[in-house]
Amino acid sequence: MFDAVDVIRTKRDKGELTDDQIDWVIAAYTRGDVADEQMASLAMAILLNGMDRREIARWTTAMIASGERMDFAKLSRPTADKHSTGGVGDKITLPLAPLVAACGVAVPQLSGRGLGHTGGTLDKLESIPGWRAALSNDELMRQLEDVGAVICAAGDGLAPADKKLYALRDVTGTVEAIPLIASSIMSKKIAEGTGALVLDVKVGTGAFMKELAHARELAETMVALGTDEGVNTVALLTDMSTPLGLTAGHSLEVRESLEVLAGGGPGDVVELTVALATEMLAAAGVTDVDPAEKLRDGSAMDVWRRMIAAQGGDVDAPLPVAPEQQVIKAESSGVLTKLDAMAVGVAAWRLGAGRARKEDPVSDVAGVELHAKPGDQVTEGQPLMTLHTEDTARFDRALEVLASAVEIGSTAPDHRLIIDRITA
Amino acid sequence: MFDAVDVIRTKRDKGELTDDQIDWVIAAYTRGDVADEQMASLAMAILLNGMDRREIARWTTAMIASGERMDFAKLSRPTADKHSTGGVGDKITLPLAPLVAACGVAVPQLSGRGLGHTGGTLDKLESIPGWRAALSNDELMRQLEDVGAVICAAGDGLAPADKKLYALRDVTGTVEAIPLIASSIMSKKIAEGTGALVLDVKVGTGAFMKELAHARELAETMVALGTDEGVNTVALLTDMSTPLGLTAGHSLEVRESLEVLAGGGPGDVVELTVALATEMLAAAGVTDVDPAEKLRDGSAMDVWRRMIAAQGGDVDAPLPVAPEQQVIKAESSGVLTKLDAMAVGVAAWRLGAGRARKEDPVSDVAGVELHAKPGDQVTEGQPLMTLHTEDTARFDRALEVLASAVEIGSTAPDHRLIIDRITA
Repeated sequence: MFDAVDVIRTKRDKGELTDDQIDWVIAAYTRGDVADEQMASLAMAILLNGMDRREIARWTTAMIASGERMDFAKLSRPTADKHSTGGVGDKITLPLAPLVAACGVAVPQLSGRGLGHTGGTLDKLESIPGWRAALSNDELMRQLEDVGAVICAAGDGLAPADKKLYALRDVTGTVEAIPLIASSIMSKKIAEGTGALVLDVKVGTGAFMKELAHARELAETMVALGTDEGVNTVALLTDMSTPLGLTAGHSLEVRESLEVLAGGGPGDVVELTVALATEMLAAAGVTDVDPAEKLRDGSAMDVWRRMIAAQGGDVDAPLPVAPEQQVIKAESSGVLTKLDAMAVGVAAWRLGAGRARKEDPVSDVAGVELHAKPGDQVTEGQPLMTLHTEDTARFDRALEVLASAVEIGSTAPDHRLIIDRITA
Repeated sequence: MFDAVDVIRTKRDKGELTDDQIDWVIAAYTRGDVADEQMASLAMAILLNGMDRREIARWTTAMIASGERMDFAKLSRPTADKHSTGGVGDKITLPLAPLVAACGVAVPQLSGRGLGHTGGTLDKLESIPGWRAALSNDELMRQLEDVGAVICAAGDGLAPADKKLYALRDVTGTVEAIPLIASSIMSKKIAEGTGALVLDVKVGTGAFMKELAHARELAETMVALGTDEGVNTVALLTDMSTPLGLTAGHSLEVRESLEVLAGGGPGDVVELTVALATEMLAAAGVTDVDPAEKLRDGSAMDVWRRMIAAQGGDVDAPLPVAPEQQVIKAESSGVLTKLDAMAVGVAAWRLGAGRARKEDPVSDVAGVELHAKPGDQVTEGQPLMTLHTEDTARFDRALEVLASAVEIGSTAPDHRLIIDRITA
């Protein structure tokens, strides 16, 4: 017999939860026998007193067991998936999924929507006329076999305990617990059934984890969880002190992704796309294909077109463009030493690209377009950014947050995109 | 503008809550704008990260402000009240309230019911045929003027924030936070409007606080809170390692209280009753009356009879007695060195005197009667306790918890009933 108060007291008093306690509390919470206020109290105790690796692993397993688990064993190809902890301008999934598929590994990319200053992959793709995010499990499986890549919404059947707990953490100040972040991400990814998983753990002002030590701890925890569950898992720690690429905003990021798929695009987006593709292929056992070549020769773009079309998207329709634009110019000449990711993310959000609550609509066209990145030489009066919106009233609040986002100096900053690689 | 998540984060990250944050969160929780899961998360953060004296004082003031505040200024006598943090066999309120009234100070004793192993004062009095706990504010005021003592249920109008928070803490493992215990007790007592307050803070196995340092911290916190609010407050730290007196159970404790009011009764009950009466009288400004004399001369008993009769109690009716009784005998000869308060409390509970949930009924007659106390010489085969119940099936579970409650040795334990006195 278990009792929610006993479980809470155990963690409150810095004890370790037993496997049975964890199994019971997750199952009882999912079916409503443990109340929201009890789980909230437990979540705060976990945030403040921590969980060890065994507890986190069991917590993850219990969340997976709360729902269905998909199985891609029948596919003719190996599978690999990528998860990013979220950043500003992080559109990597868009070129990455078709690129990896073009290299012979199937990519079942179950994605989410944006909340706060980071954009959601599904929101970005919905700026393509006709594209739809919802697929049945059968449609997903067929598209994976036929096209090799799917980016769609996760069904309600995967890890329902995590869905319920995630919503609770959002309103109770318990989002920032590494054990709960790691088990949330990994329970969804493991239930999804991928054979290999590459984690892009962001660190910096625009990321969830502002400090390298925390990002590293999260990455190590997730890699261990995946490995223990038989998923070949690797993580890259990557910089999120400045936006990725030159765009933040839905249709703006699709446009940039198309440039990458066409063999061009910003250097950092290409670098990270190829690095993550290489990791995914290796984790899936494919080492004899060069993903950079598949960008150059157009085969990644071919998969993109088939992938978008399979979900109703019109690949030849022009992408929507914001009716209102405002240019921000450099106030002096020199080297751009800082272009803060969080400020750009919040500006894009305020221009209409983000949502404050799950049910809010987003603007397809709103966002920020960058004309220079840290390390670039700029001249006074040169355009630094263009703000895009549907509503000119939004410019002022975006400008407010951008006021301290830019610094121009004399020495190029030391900037490394891929900081470290974490394996089991 | 305040936000529940910001308030939670402040305390989670070991910050101090501002006065405005505290006022807002208590008011918003009372009216339902802060959800139970948010307050549960905040309560756990407070339990683990603490609150300083200013925060506790403001929290208490905000809970008082959530409801009505009584005022006894119109009475012809000063008022004094007593609060005990709860213990096994703690029937002191029963002889104390009429005793202090007999000495010229009015006692408005708003009491509660028992939960767990400690009995509630109202439950005890309800074993008197006809007695009723509920009084209107007018009835309370009239009885205070006419009789000088009232023991009744607290109305719903006093500190409603505390009522809601207390019920929440009970199911979320957040009862044991000293800032929340202190503010809960003191918000009710201050809202009740007493001019002087004496706190009986118990320490020992049968008490809420098992360690002297914690009991002392709680006592000091509450004395400071009362003093700051203009209530003349003093606390005694008293022992609860063994039951108070020779009875634990409702009608059993009323019987013992009548013995004390008749000038007899167990020495420890008389000692604590007189000590607390002396403190209450002094705190109310009365120093020329000897309470021990008022027990001996029958005037305290006179007030008792009028107090019980005023609330419908039949003071001449015989008290109910348990139909089933079982005697536990000493297994060896020597000095009784231990008689554990918690074990006796749980045994009384299991015999029918206690409740697991608020809505459970209690047995008037169930309980434990002691025939020896620590320090007494006992002979093998001599009766040590008599168990009282309405249901013989309950004996076994009571015996189970009592198995390790008694120790017989050779040296009398060092036992001090009143451990310390805490003043502002």
